[in-house]
Amino acid sequence: MPHRRSAFFISDRTGITAESLGNTLLTQFDGLEFKRETVPFVDTVEKAREVADRICERADSDHLRPLVFTSIVNPEVRQALKVDCVKIVDFFETFIGELEDELGVKATETLGKAHGMNSEEKYDYRIEAVNFSLNHDDGVKLKDLDEADVILVGVSRSGKTPTCLYLALQYGIKAANYPLTPEDLDSPSLPKMLQPYRNKLFGLTIDPSRLHNIRTERRPDSKYASMDNCRFEVNEAESMFRQHGVSFISTTHKSIEEIASTIIHKANLTRRF
Amino acid sequence: MPHRRSAFFISDRTGITAESLGNTLLTQFDGLEFKRETVPFVDTVEKAREVADRICERADSDHLRPLVFTSIVNPEVRQALKVDCVKIVDFFETFIGELEDELGVKATETLGKAHGMNSEEKYDYRIEAVNFSLNHDDGVKLKDLDEADVILVGVSRSGKTPTCLYLALQYGIKAANYPLTPEDLDSPSLPKMLQPYRNKLFGLTIDPSRLHNIRTERRPDSKYASMDNCRFEVNEAESMFRQHGVSFISTTHKSIEEIASTIIHKANLTRRF
Repeated sequence: MPHRRSAFFISDRTGITAESLGNTLLTQFDGLEFKRETVPFVDTVEKAREVADRICERADSDHLRPLVFTSIVNPEVRQALKVDCVKIVDFFETFIGELEDELGVKATETLGKAHGMNSEEKYDYRIEAVNFSLNHDDGVKLKDLDEADVILVGVSRSGKTPTCLYLALQYGIKAANYPLTPEDLDSPSLPKMLQPYRNKLFGLTIDPSRLHNIRTERRPDSKYASMDNCRFEVNEAESMFRQHGVSFISTTHKSIEEIASTIIHKANLTRRF
Repeated sequence: MPHRRSAFFISDRTGITAESLGNTLLTQFDGLEFKRETVPFVDTVEKAREVADRICERADSDHLRPLVFTSIVNPEVRQALKVDCVKIVDFFETFIGELEDELGVKATETLGKAHGMNSEEKYDYRIEAVNFSLNHDDGVKLKDLDEADVILVGVSRSGKTPTCLYLALQYGIKAANYPLTPEDLDSPSLPKMLQPYRNKLFGLTIDPSRLHNIRTERRPDSKYASMDNCRFEVNEAESMFRQHGVSFISTTHKSIEEIASTIIHKANLTRRF
């Protein structure tokens, strides 16, 4: 049985950042497997001691020194995790000193201030953007397109809905979505409703065989899901985008994070927080 | 006019991690303001040189050395960003050497492998979970509750929908949501539909005056939004949770990330990727 090393991601808040950066580092070690665990909200010395005890027990049973990736801000809490039985990778402490030197100012070492906006404002932006996405999921209203920061256009199941929701939740961006119907695709012109909003449009496309698989899950053996129809729809949609100068990207080999940040970058959108 | 320093978050992928960790560090410097910019998908030496040139121009106009937070994996691309006019904070290079020493293995320095699951599988999990959340947003079906990993319970506008969507997108968790109606709140027992699922329930509560504000936005001067009614509903909901031993948290001063990761932690949920 191969020894698997334990890797802990420990944070005073959600742990999303420590986990994500820690995982980026760990994926660089191809052959190795890790037992991963995220421990969020470690924000007191007492909690840190409890976690440290648990990790030391793990070190004993693993016969391997666990890795601890942490981004804890408070120096005393951080200190309580520094026990001999672990290898600490500290994303906060490592850099805060250099930044103090560079900026010529001492760090305040306080937790959890978001930049520029308090958490209620941020919450409100998000909810407004999420509701915006949800409210027209069944057919678009003109009013929505007026208010939208961006309008995602694509054939059914090309990834519009999850991308809109991600843009809303992660960035507070109001993204409308317009599904290209077979009728829209029969004509080379832009759907009438979209014509006043040329500058807000962003196209999503997808590999026809991937689309075929996704649609088959939903409606097996339908015309809708057939390979021929998927190929037809994707071709027509892409030539519509090209003809009208609508930027578009393929969602096929991309994660939702990648789709969203590509759109923000290419469409020059501004995040709300 | 105060000099504001520029801060760039540069990544070979989406930039979300570099941005998030960089911002955690910058918020420690209370009095200072920064001009922040995220540059994603810098994955070739050429792109890195272009970005470096642009940042050096900024250094000239700012008369202050820009900060560059980066998590680029490829050593040549990383090297192209190391120009004299910037202060580099490298989240990758700083740690990869220590990890090689600790693990006794050389890093592969290749980009973008997710752990354990390819991006298509991850995409499918997410979409399934998102669709799960969306499909019963107007009234819950029993079948949904059967399939759910967790069922969020709370009064209208306590934060259930965005939390469900975040759990789906960020973790692939299938979260159903059950809105407590005024009729539900008139009785001390759990709503009938929820009784078989006691172990999957997780309660959301909210400060009555915050709820009053949120509801007033939607329906000004209604009974629904009145302070008295908000206080009543929240009290009844909380005593229902207590009486039936349903864990619950307040969403009032929390971000959606914090709500979601608290639920995962307390309800012992397993992320799908």
